[in-house]
Amino acid sequence: MIVARFRPDVLIDEQSRLAAGWRHRGHRSFRCRVGHRTLVTFPDLAAASPEGERFLTVLRATRAVESVVDSAESPPLGSLAAVGEPTAVQVSEDWTVGGGRFTWIAGPCAVESQAQLTAVAGEVRAHGAQLLRGGAFKPRTSPYAFQGLGQEGLRLLAEASAATGLPVVTEVVDSAQVEAVAEVAQVLQIGARNAQNFALLREVALTGRPVLLKRGFGCTVQEWLHSAEYLLAAGNSQVLLCERGVRTFESATRFTLDISAVSLVKRLSHLPVLVDPSHACGRADLVAPLAAAAAVAGADGVMVDVHQDAHGALCDGQQAITPEEFGALVTRTSRILHSIDPTEPVADHAMAGR
Amino acid sequence: MIVARFRPDVLIDEQSRLAAGWRHRGHRSFRCRVGHRTLVTFPDLAAASPEGERFLTVLRATRAVESVVDSAESPPLGSLAAVGEPTAVQVSEDWTVGGGRFTWIAGPCAVESQAQLTAVAGEVRAHGAQLLRGGAFKPRTSPYAFQGLGQEGLRLLAEASAATGLPVVTEVVDSAQVEAVAEVAQVLQIGARNAQNFALLREVALTGRPVLLKRGFGCTVQEWLHSAEYLLAAGNSQVLLCERGVRTFESATRFTLDISAVSLVKRLSHLPVLVDPSHACGRADLVAPLAAAAAVAGADGVMVDVHQDAHGALCDGQQAITPEEFGALVTRTSRILHSIDPTEPVADHAMAGR
Amino acid sequence: MIVARFRPDVLIDEQSRLAAGWRHRGHRSFRCRVGHRTLVTFPDLAAASPEGERFLTVLRATRAVESVVDSAESPPLGSLAAVGEPTAVQVSEDWTVGGGRFTWIAGPCAVESQAQLTAVAGEVRAHGAQLLRGGAFKPRTSPYAFQGLGQEGLRLLAEASAATGLPVVTEVVDSAQVEAVAEVAQVLQIGARNAQNFALLREVALTGRPVLLKRGFGCTVQEWLHSAEYLLAAGNSQVLLCERGVRTFESATRFTLDISAVSLVKRLSHLPVLVDPSHACGRADLVAPLAAAAAVAGADGVMVDVHQDAHGALCDGQQAITPEEFGALVTRTSRILHSIDPTEPVADHAMAGR
Amino acid sequence: MIVARFRPDVLIDEQSRLAAGWRHRGHRSFRCRVGHRTLVTFPDLAAASPEGERFLTVLRATRAVESVVDSAESPPLGSLAAVGEPTAVQVSEDWTVGGGRFTWIAGPCAVESQAQLTAVAGEVRAHGAQLLRGGAFKPRTSPYAFQGLGQEGLRLLAEASAATGLPVVTEVVDSAQVEAVAEVAQVLQIGARNAQNFALLREVALTGRPVLLKRGFGCTVQEWLHSAEYLLAAGNSQVLLCERGVRTFESATRFTLDISAVSLVKRLSHLPVLVDPSHACGRADLVAPLAAAAAVAGADGVMVDVHQDAHGALCDGQQAITPEEFGALVTRTSRILHSIDPTEPVADHAMAGR
Repeated sequence: MIVARFRPDVLIDEQSRLAAGWRHRGHRSFRCRVGHRTLVTFPDLAAASPEGERFLTVLRATRAVESVVDSAESPPLGSLAAVGEPTAVQVSEDWTVGGGRFTWIAGPCAVESQAQLTAVAGEVRAHGAQLLRGGAFKPRTSPYAFQGLGQEGLRLLAEASAATGLPVVTEVVDSAQVEAVAEVAQVLQIGARNAQNFALLREVALTGRPVLLKRGFGCTVQEWLHSAEYLLAAGNSQVLLCERGVRTFESATRFTLDISAVSLVKRLSHLPVLVDPSHACGRADLVAPLAAAAAVAGADGVMVDVHQDAHGALCDGQQAITPEEFGALVTRTSRILHSIDPTEPVADHAMAGR
Repeated sequence: MIVARFRPDVLIDEQSRLAAGWRHRGHRSFRCRVGHRTLVTFPDLAAASPEGERFLTVLRATRAVESVVDSAESPPLGSLAAVGEPTAVQVSEDWTVGGGRFTWIAGPCAVESQAQLTAVAGEVRAHGAQLLRGGAFKPRTSPYAFQGLGQEGLRLLAEASAATGLPVVTEVVDSAQVEAVAEVAQVLQIGARNAQNFALLREVALTGRPVLLKRGFGCTVQEWLHSAEYLLAAGNSQVLLCERGVRTFESATRFTLDISAVSLVKRLSHLPVLVDPSHACGRADLVAPLAAAAAVAGADGVMVDVHQDAHGALCDGQQAITPEEFGALVTRTSRILHSIDPTEPVADHAMAGR
Repeated sequence: MIVARFRPDVLIDEQSRLAAGWRHRGHRSFRCRVGHRTLVTFPDLAAASPEGERFLTVLRATRAVESVVDSAESPPLGSLAAVGEPTAVQVSEDWTVGGGRFTWIAGPCAVESQAQLTAVAGEVRAHGAQLLRGGAFKPRTSPYAFQGLGQEGLRLLAEASAATGLPVVTEVVDSAQVEAVAEVAQVLQIGARNAQNFALLREVALTGRPVLLKRGFGCTVQEWLHSAEYLLAAGNSQVLLCERGVRTFESATRFTLDISAVSLVKRLSHLPVLVDPSHACGRADLVAPLAAAAAVAGADGVMVDVHQDAHGALCDGQQAITPEEFGALVTRTSRILHSIDPTEPVADHAMAGR
Repeated sequence: MIVARFRPDVLIDEQSRLAAGWRHRGHRSFRCRVGHRTLVTFPDLAAASPEGERFLTVLRATRAVESVVDSAESPPLGSLAAVGEPTAVQVSEDWTVGGGRFTWIAGPCAVESQAQLTAVAGEVRAHGAQLLRGGAFKPRTSPYAFQGLGQEGLRLLAEASAATGLPVVTEVVDSAQVEAVAEVAQVLQIGARNAQNFALLREVALTGRPVLLKRGFGCTVQEWLHSAEYLLAAGNSQVLLCERGVRTFESATRFTLDISAVSLVKRLSHLPVLVDPSHACGRADLVAPLAAAAAVAGADGVMVDVHQDAHGALCDGQQAITPEEFGALVTRTSRILHSIDPTEPVADHAMAGR
């Protein structure tokens, strides 16, 4: 699909005027602000068609347009080629995900009580986490399983956030709760089971808040990027992609972490990519090596389940690590990351023409 | 999980009184009317625990209780063992899905126009369909793809239903539309991408309308049955299960139809099971053999994409068959079904003890 | 790939002379006798290349050549388009697999003793089996599991075959045993774990005996057809394809029977296609419905594990049915098959141009 | 399964005498020398059975026995618990795989010519490779694809090995070639398609040479470990496990690298674990990040396809990196590895009791 990038100095007014003209010709267009740039895509125009070629010529001759790309490999507004460089997402006054920094998101799978959450939040902060995770609304396979504390869980998250200064990431599972969750959470999470709940994606996009979008465990990389494109096409470019394992025939781990997808998505998309090793493998003893693997494969951060008493956890205890283990993991991974020269490309191998 | 069935002659009042007593002991219970029976399950009681054993004894001694089952293989309210026989779902005054009848659901993947829908609806009715399918709200991988006609599509479905007398099955993708869809559709469809959208499942259950629940393409049979249990636990037992193919490494077909799941679910669940061969294989030439295979494997019906002009279809044209092909398919499959003696068990093989 | 079919009346001498001429131009060619026809393919010539187009013109102008096909969807010598109609494989004086007949292959997973084999062989024959299956060399995941009776197993199979008149299908797992197995078995089986053991495929092809080629559980349909092509390219067209389930995330069944692959392969290949529901699902209670499903999906036969005492079986007992269950299965499936008009196409839907 | 480890100072004679006594009681036993230890396993004795318990008592009271383990999670002779620490495999006078060292295996997918091989071998050696890879016998999906140079390829590998001093790893695809390959190669490779070709595994084990065992792309971790157990049970403990990607629904990469399996197998097995990122992803641009990920996840080495002219490669060119890229990859990964403190456990999290 054809996607154009405006010059940084083009005013919103001029952008709107141009877009109106293009719309006038009958071409649908979708616009999205990405960092300090604006992208616009024309989904009905194929670069290969005669009409598309004519329109490409027009776009290239338009002074306000800085670059025009035919995004063949990836949805247009999320495409790295369209933006030209990776983007970062500001999640609080103090912290930006992406842009060369590595982010640690930690906390319990589910919020269980004030005591539990306050203690964990303090500990993960002390050990290096920049964001607090914790589920108030839990999507559970069985209707009889613990479904989360709901509104009370949100209240506890707000308290823990206030006490520690950590911004909160929490899942929203229903359009009806978007507003309530957005009052508490700096980042709204779309879980794997809702990765193609397009109605929820649109609703969440409209909050303007950063969104952490998990990959569906039955979804391809392309489908995941298309789900992100729903957010971008709705005008919200504050998107964090999160790989959390896919369904395969292997049963020794809960899911199979698709580490290749991390590197691949960094080549296709400008959005930050996180990894959730806890849900991917479902085993506490594999979280540390998988977190380190994610870091060197190019991930912008990691999200892990941390619980003081994994045996007593109400949800997914077997995959939670202790705060001390989290601390050791941060230390080890940080040392690894410092050994990598950030100016050195991970791979300068040109795939072009292959 | 322990599940008890009330005697048919036990009054609602007595059921409520008993349930209140059980609740009083601190056990959660979920009740659901299934046909002319009432089931009640106690999710927190494991039959193997001392407390569970004591409670089992109490239940068995309760006059109002007809049978008590420990449903180990399958969620309790949907369990065949709990009900004792397959159930049927009344979708209109004239038609019941299940109960030994084979149901044909046919129509276009997406509603495109009045002309298209009226013509197809008349043709599939003439060729033997008992329900009309057609999407007004389409969940599409890309935000730029045709998303369905929405409200206008619902209006056209209502017209086509009135003209042909066929009840309508159509997908609901958002809680916000449940009411509008329920005004038009006799059966509300939950699509594969929303199979674990538990908020939507609860919302749809509350309409009391029959629900066609597609299996998520990344979901196991157990997860699918648990999604159905969300509907049952919310008091709605009018559930039609629909297998539509799962994700595998094979790319010659769009998905891989899990034909074993059809036979398996007929052994685990009392709910009717349908098959959608069109979405499963994504190829028009395989729809007929897969529909027949589904029928002899024990399915209670089949749902197929039918379009007069597959090349011009706005959605999934390559998998649509023509009305004439649909007619031939109904004729062939009906002849096969008549050859099967319904009194003869498909397999009387006891798995017990293996 | 370009594949040419000789006219039936072209003598071997002329075929050889022409092939020599083509080879002279530097094009590799592979010849295979398929029924009363001879096919020859030129793997290095792409129909789309200028050289390929020139060569196509030459072939079409050659009097001895009846038809020329560019087999794009499927390997050339196994391609249905190249032969023009399905082929059949003669497995004994009395029986041919394919050609409109439905074949039942039954017997124990592993040969355990004379008493066991003699009894089962007699019973499955009485109930309608045309071939006896039974493993003498068993490929087992663990080196400590029962590996089959080996040579002694072959001797018992020869006895049972003599006593019942049933031809034998048995697996060969090593080039070193091909000769010994070929002395006893009318049909040599290549198991799923050796589906891409190309050295073994070549060795088995050279016996000239019919080969039953199971699909590898991690192999695509195309890879399976390419494995068959190894047999054909080595001059052996007596190939029976056998679908036996593939690896997926679903764990309720041992493997997932790919019923779509059966219909699909009947459209791509001229070879007979069988189905092994026992190994596919790993559960005795699903064998009957899956066998019937295979039959109406277009399979030319079914291969099932039968054992008098499934609990005591040394190998895969949980998937074996009893001789009586086998009899009921044959009766039921036969009635279904009789209801299908063989002159009526399963689907006349043209995929061309889609 | 019960597995006993002899004290290091127990003489072979005494080991044999004890084993004979145990055999005398009717228990099968399998013995394998692992490093300077000897393990013996009794596959027919379950620790949970009364007979197994009695035998455990006997074993524990036997002076020559150092430790007895019930290997529940993993096949016994390959089990880490049985040996007590990871083992290493000596592949040449100068190099040992495992034991804390990281090994680089590099070279072309297929040997194509003397010029090609000599040049690549020299370059990968200069850039840090310790072993040379290169296929002489290539298992190809299609019978018409380039099948390798065969004997001529072996001769070229021998020359390149002599010229560079690098030991050679090359695949053996047929029992008939084992001897010829063993004359040239220091390490015999079993490819993914032969991972469950148990006849070939036994044949290769008997050479006594180190064996590189790739995981079958449709095989679980447990099946892979059981294949290795065939080698160990045949007396050969010189086994290198190699993860090379599994089949999943994701098609953006050729296979899906199962990075979790690397960490997991390091917890289950004492054998060194390698990773082949080239075949796993099938894309040159992902090789570098995946190699680094493998290293930090605990792999003992990496095996990569290197070719001077990837476009002109006769086999799998799109996944080959250039010698220069290989050099950069070695440098980057080495820096990462140096940042990891080898005395620090990757994870000290106890899974016990979960």
